[in-house]
Amino acid sequence: MNFLGRLQHAWQHQRSMLCVGLDPDLTKFPRPLQALAARDPLAAIERFCLGIMEATAAYACAFKPQIAYFASSRAESVLERLAQACRDHYPHHVWILDAKRGDIGSTAEHYAKEAFDRYLADAVTVSPYMGTDSLSPYLSYESRGIFVLCRTSNPGGDDFQMRPSPQQPLYVEVAQQAAQRWNHHQQVGLVVGATYPREVEAVRHAAPDLPLLIPGIGAQGGDLVATVKAGRNANGGMLINSSRAILYASAGDDWQVRAAAIAKITRDDINAVNA
Amino acid sequence: MNFLGRLQHAWQHQRSMLCVGLDPDLTKFPRPLQALAARDPLAAIERFCLGIMEATAAYACAFKPQIAYFASSRAESVLERLAQACRDHYPHHVWILDAKRGDIGSTAEHYAKEAFDRYLADAVTVSPYMGTDSLSPYLSYESRGIFVLCRTSNPGGDDFQMRPSPQQPLYVEVAQQAAQRWNHHQQVGLVVGATYPREVEAVRHAAPDLPLLIPGIGAQGGDLVATVKAGRNANGGMLINSSRAILYASAGDDWQVRAAAIAKITRDDINAVNA
Repeated sequence: MNFLGRLQHAWQHQRSMLCVGLDPDLTKFPRPLQALAARDPLAAIERFCLGIMEATAAYACAFKPQIAYFASSRAESVLERLAQACRDHYPHHVWILDAKRGDIGSTAEHYAKEAFDRYLADAVTVSPYMGTDSLSPYLSYESRGIFVLCRTSNPGGDDFQMRPSPQQPLYVEVAQQAAQRWNHHQQVGLVVGATYPREVEAVRHAAPDLPLLIPGIGAQGGDLVATVKAGRNANGGMLINSSRAILYASAGDDWQVRAAAIAKITRDDINAVNA
Repeated sequence: MNFLGRLQHAWQHQRSMLCVGLDPDLTKFPRPLQALAARDPLAAIERFCLGIMEATAAYACAFKPQIAYFASSRAESVLERLAQACRDHYPHHVWILDAKRGDIGSTAEHYAKEAFDRYLADAVTVSPYMGTDSLSPYLSYESRGIFVLCRTSNPGGDDFQMRPSPQQPLYVEVAQQAAQRWNHHQQVGLVVGATYPREVEAVRHAAPDLPLLIPGIGAQGGDLVATVKAGRNANGGMLINSSRAILYASAGDDWQVRAAAIAKITRDDINAVNA
């Protein structure tokens, strides 16, 4: 099965387009995990992420660990175990490594090996800056996918993505190249921020069939309804990611209950737009 | 001391602009390390990298580990020890983590923590795609540096870096922004491929004072003389990186001797242009 097929199965089986981001930040952990976090940070990261996965799995179709949070805590071994846990316990969910890798030749081959073999990623996020051949090593894993950074909604997102002009911005060209040159085997998606639904529309127009990975809902405050309307397609077409709003929904004993509640609300809000 | 000062000290103390790239590829290790590589890959990676550092330190001013090679082999602990070894044994050398990171906000903070605290990097390579605020978390480490991906010489380098036209390419704008907006504290350099010396000239024109990190000499076949002439400035101005040509100079018992010889020749060739 190719990556798009894998994603479509997840959407349908789970009846959800919600992706739960795993950004384990020790300084924000709920009180019941703080003693463990002080004594054994890796154990706390593992328990926290497993707890979030368990609480939200029913409402999500994907999990997206952000590797920077693991790397800064020397928690690579935890990420490996979470990957295996996802495969064992949530086989219908998609596991996306958020790493935004970008390099060439044999270096990119090693990054692909890290993402797909070591961390069992169904897909990995990558940067387009170095061009087509920097993406090929990932695409040679035929059952896996990449989400290419396209449009980001941070303040500096305009610096280069809008170049040379809002009428012919770089990010639309990235979307076009992704659709026309890279997606021969239904492996390619795009990362598109949710702040400006009109831009999600422009990306959807340039790449009608590509799945979109959309951060910026929840803590980052994007407009959910307008974003879903702009980004959906006949297949479903999008993963709406939420991280902090779910992960840190409560600092108390009810952290899993509250995470589940926010995940359910977000899934339902997305599905209400689709209905 | 700011990063440019650190780099100038390294250039002067070592009388070299050579940076030795550490890309440990187990499949290419010399014969004397192959039995160890089969039995204990991490020990082999450590012995190989330490052996290369020892052999080439006299001729280099910097070492540049490429993190993908460590990550694909679960060798993060080795990279930590190499970082400490560089600090202990080669305190005049600059230690550059080649990671090409690119993300925003708290994620970028965690990547900066990984590079600077965990791997003791004097500088880290980063991608400009997400714009100014994606670089700020690194710049808040005031004694450390970043090398921003600017122009790469791989076949796909033109896909976006030449956009919208060779007369006003993206990579020159990256160089301008780096020089004018990001380099308030002498922390910023640029990664520029060596294949087209005329492009090194264009970058040097856009960013007269920024240090350039130049891969593409040696195995990648760039023109050394033309590149040095195009990229040097009054301070020295460049790090010329060579990885494979030095690392895998010999597959036999003389791998360290040959690595040293190639490093010496490369340093001398660079210095001959400068003389």
